[in-house]
Amino acid sequence: MIKKISHIGIAVKSIEEAAKFYEKIGLKIESIEEVPTQKLRVAFIPVGEAKIELLEPTSEESAVAKFIEKKGEGIQHIAFDVDDLSEALANNEKEGIQMIDKEPRPGAGGNEIAFLHPKSAFGVLYEFCKKKQ
Amino acid sequence: MIKKISHIGIAVKSIEEAAKFYEKIGLKIESIEEVPTQKLRVAFIPVGEAKIELLEPTSEESAVAKFIEKKGEGIQHIAFDVDDLSEALANNEKEGIQMIDKEPRPGAGGNEIAFLHPKSAFGVLYEFCKKKQ
Repeated sequence: MIKKISHIGIAVKSIEEAAKFYEKIGLKIESIEEVPTQKLRVAFIPVGEAKIELLEPTSEESAVAKFIEKKGEGIQHIAFDVDDLSEALANNEKEGIQMIDKEPRPGAGGNEIAFLHPKSAFGVLYEFCKKKQ
Repeated sequence: MIKKISHIGIAVKSIEEAAKFYEKIGLKIESIEEVPTQKLRVAFIPVGEAKIELLEPTSEESAVAKFIEKKGEGIQHIAFDVDDLSEALANNEKEGIQMIDKEPRPGAGGNEIAFLHPKSAFGVLYEFCKKKQ
């Protein structure tokens, strides 16, 4: 079951440059993490029960680098917190929703994640996220 | 001050078609509203403390129709709930943030809203929203 919005992933060229804007509107980076498997640096900005995640590519081969090259900086994905990721993925398969990840895989912050295919979601890249216990 | 994510605005060609996907993942439309000033129908889908807003253009002249024509269906904007919209806009001006709306204007749900310019926000269209009392 979907509990809440976990985070919104925003592709940026530089976390430090983008952070200046977020500071101006009163939001602060809580932590920064390297995610080598996705060739990313990720900055977490809490907003209520959710977070904004600034995604900075560390390599031109990163999916986020390709996103920026094609579409420019901007919103890349929305992640939902789910209470049971395996159950949610089984439900998605039953419902005929196309998945990028059929099995949970490790994401930032030690969470388990899986991406849905935007073709099934009317153009939105959704992530399902099971928070680290 | 920003309190939380109010909603995420998602441009769709048809609320009824997109609703089928959201129902499959367990999310339900709470209400649908016409917003003639923006040439939109808007469907509200609660997720935790925030909402997903499906934005369906009712005219080709709608900004959302132009968004879909240019970029396809997908995430169009992120709205933050603020406790004092006039104060937030004054702060943005002081900080040199480019605004689309310099003054609050009426939005969906009887709220007062103002959009920031994506040029100042690293490609993201942000809305500041003061909930109807």
